[in-house]
Amino acid sequence: MIQACIVTIGDEILIGQVVDTNSAHLATALEGAGVHVARMLSVGDKPEEITSVLQDALSRYAIVITTGGLGPTKDDITKAVLGRLSGSKGLVEHPGQLEMVRSILSSRGLDVLPSNLAQAQVPDTAEVIVNRLGTAPIMVFRGVQGGGTLYALPGVPHEAVGAIPAVIRDISVHQSLAPIAHRCIMVFGVAESALSERIAEWEDALPADMHLAYLPNPLTGIRLRLSVYGGDSQDVEKRMEEQLSALRKLLGPLVYAVEDSTLEDTVGALLKQAGKTLSAAESCTGGEIAHLITSVPGSSAYFLGSVTSYAVSVKEQVLGVPAACIAEHGVVSSEVAAAMAEGVRRLTGSDYAVSTTGLAGPSGDERNPVGTVWIGVATPRGTRTASYCYKSDRKRNIERFAAAALNFLRLVLLEELKY
Amino acid sequence: MIQACIVTIGDEILIGQVVDTNSAHLATALEGAGVHVARMLSVGDKPEEITSVLQDALSRYAIVITTGGLGPTKDDITKAVLGRLSGSKGLVEHPGQLEMVRSILSSRGLDVLPSNLAQAQVPDTAEVIVNRLGTAPIMVFRGVQGGGTLYALPGVPHEAVGAIPAVIRDISVHQSLAPIAHRCIMVFGVAESALSERIAEWEDALPADMHLAYLPNPLTGIRLRLSVYGGDSQDVEKRMEEQLSALRKLLGPLVYAVEDSTLEDTVGALLKQAGKTLSAAESCTGGEIAHLITSVPGSSAYFLGSVTSYAVSVKEQVLGVPAACIAEHGVVSSEVAAAMAEGVRRLTGSDYAVSTTGLAGPSGDERNPVGTVWIGVATPRGTRTASYCYKSDRKRNIERFAAAALNFLRLVLLEELKY
Repeated sequence: MIQACIVTIGDEILIGQVVDTNSAHLATALEGAGVHVARMLSVGDKPEEITSVLQDALSRYAIVITTGGLGPTKDDITKAVLGRLSGSKGLVEHPGQLEMVRSILSSRGLDVLPSNLAQAQVPDTAEVIVNRLGTAPIMVFRGVQGGGTLYALPGVPHEAVGAIPAVIRDISVHQSLAPIAHRCIMVFGVAESALSERIAEWEDALPADMHLAYLPNPLTGIRLRLSVYGGDSQDVEKRMEEQLSALRKLLGPLVYAVEDSTLEDTVGALLKQAGKTLSAAESCTGGEIAHLITSVPGSSAYFLGSVTSYAVSVKEQVLGVPAACIAEHGVVSSEVAAAMAEGVRRLTGSDYAVSTTGLAGPSGDERNPVGTVWIGVATPRGTRTASYCYKSDRKRNIERFAAAALNFLRLVLLEELKY
Repeated sequence: MIQACIVTIGDEILIGQVVDTNSAHLATALEGAGVHVARMLSVGDKPEEITSVLQDALSRYAIVITTGGLGPTKDDITKAVLGRLSGSKGLVEHPGQLEMVRSILSSRGLDVLPSNLAQAQVPDTAEVIVNRLGTAPIMVFRGVQGGGTLYALPGVPHEAVGAIPAVIRDISVHQSLAPIAHRCIMVFGVAESALSERIAEWEDALPADMHLAYLPNPLTGIRLRLSVYGGDSQDVEKRMEEQLSALRKLLGPLVYAVEDSTLEDTVGALLKQAGKTLSAAESCTGGEIAHLITSVPGSSAYFLGSVTSYAVSVKEQVLGVPAACIAEHGVVSSEVAAAMAEGVRRLTGSDYAVSTTGLAGPSGDERNPVGTVWIGVATPRGTRTASYCYKSDRKRNIERFAAAALNFLRLVLLEELKY
């Protein structure tokens, strides 16, 4: 399989000022095209450092892609370094990019400065792919130092992302690429270690060309990713489907999606398909559940709204939780969770309602340790509650509570909607 | 200046499935401590590849920090590689981490499996910093292959970020670091380029040893960080204070904090100091404002609760927005924003209330373009509204709307609370 290396150039990344998202976009596109990204690097705006990293990369990998360092200011030195590396004898003007520079600046109402015109000049060893989103051209250097092909992309994220299709096209014209396939399964409600033991036999029996990865996340649970490199694509698809189907049987309702997805997507899809509506009453999660649900485009089709009842007065007066219930059982209790879910269901007229009451931290109360949450789900058939305890910091506990509530809601929906 | 290299380990990064945010967090903290990050690398879960990259890094840099590959599953191989690299003769159990593994799993109601217990075993060449947020210990290897010190951190973002303070402490004990001083000013409501022009004269006149960095973020605005490397600390503090005091005069109410802070912290502090309460009515922000406010520990002292009125029926029946008001002005309007804020203030009995109604995307409506938001703030003295338009995707627009609402609330509070 053809191997690639991505090199990000710029001091702003090394001091932590900017998170590099270009590399992930490039990697996704390259993997999809059957190019394996073997390494990613970030280096600062220093000529010796850039030179040494690129020399090493070109000697190891068929494809090297750089982003950054192509701007018009003094600290942008990538072009000069690439000229030297590729044995260029001087700069030449590229008429297509020059026209683009003039057109971009005039559309923004800006004067064309000499530093802008210089953007259209490239080493005579470079082929140019015109950048239609910015002034710096995309440059291709083939057989640099007797090694691989180097693509130099601008660092501005939307320009870098915009350049990707042309780069992938160029690679597929010049290289013979093997196919690659990924499939995901989303799992919630089990720890990574327990999941690993539960599927150990299945995993050990995977064919040698299939690779499984565990990608845990507090809000989405564990993403299991199965990958196959090479092989006939129709056959691969069938073989993956067989393996995943066996895996789904092993895991049952722990699996909430068979593609890259989230709990809020899944809950939304269940409600949408059934034509049912949802509301939420949140105490300790403070709006996080509503935020997650409404982050899904089109959620207004099933989500009516929510009440964040942080104060006891709001629990009593807005949601109608009886004061006696709170006095007898405490705010963090099964009874209050149930009354909150029933209250917001009544208030909004929704078919389903989910609620949370708990202690995210920093401290617990006289009845419950910090990290305790009670979750309620009210439905046309009645109300159910569940309790969990987590041991993270406040921010993380809030995320875990919200995810646990969405998952409990999902399980109730699965049962009542008869999927 | 001491140099460091950050190595991220995991196939999920190389295929673009996960954006590496750990490196930026680490780099920010290292820079802050006076350690220069010279290079960042990402490699896959392959023993030879990890070994060769780490050998090279250890020969070049005094400090190498890895994240990832320490989980309990088969694809996590970093620990074995580090054992071999450091000449370990075998694994030893770390009692502190073992206790933590048991405590974390029992608090989550999970069984302790053999693979969990194995997490507490480390190469006999490693010093352990107990990880209180997860089962994999933080390991320190000193003088590996006659070279630098290697810190191995878990890859799960909140565990990696949680490990940073202990790593920085260890580095500052074992290395002689040049003193470094940072001060922050938080600014909201101005674009980076406009801010840069506004303070250009002040910035150009900064002494040569002072460096200013712009750190923009949609939720917190722009963090301006002033840094001084080296020098006598008392004198430095006084000189920085003089510069920052001049900067604050230049920027006026655009400045919302003179330390690393957030809008929700600032709003909370204003309310707490005045002994006033707050509620929120959210449409397009879908719970994000309540989520931000309640992410501040102690927010129950001033935050009573909120209503997320996603459906028109909830706006009318729960918040009491007149149907005629919606029919005449449209859901996204100054009038509806005002009625929502007044409605939730009445419902909860709070002193202040903030509201949002807008179009986060993907599409606009017949009256307003996508990205439009109306914000209302109801107070004992009356109600005020403001409108903004942003041009990002749905997720980013929701963040910008919530931040703009908190900032508008802050400006009203500043005025009415007479600070």
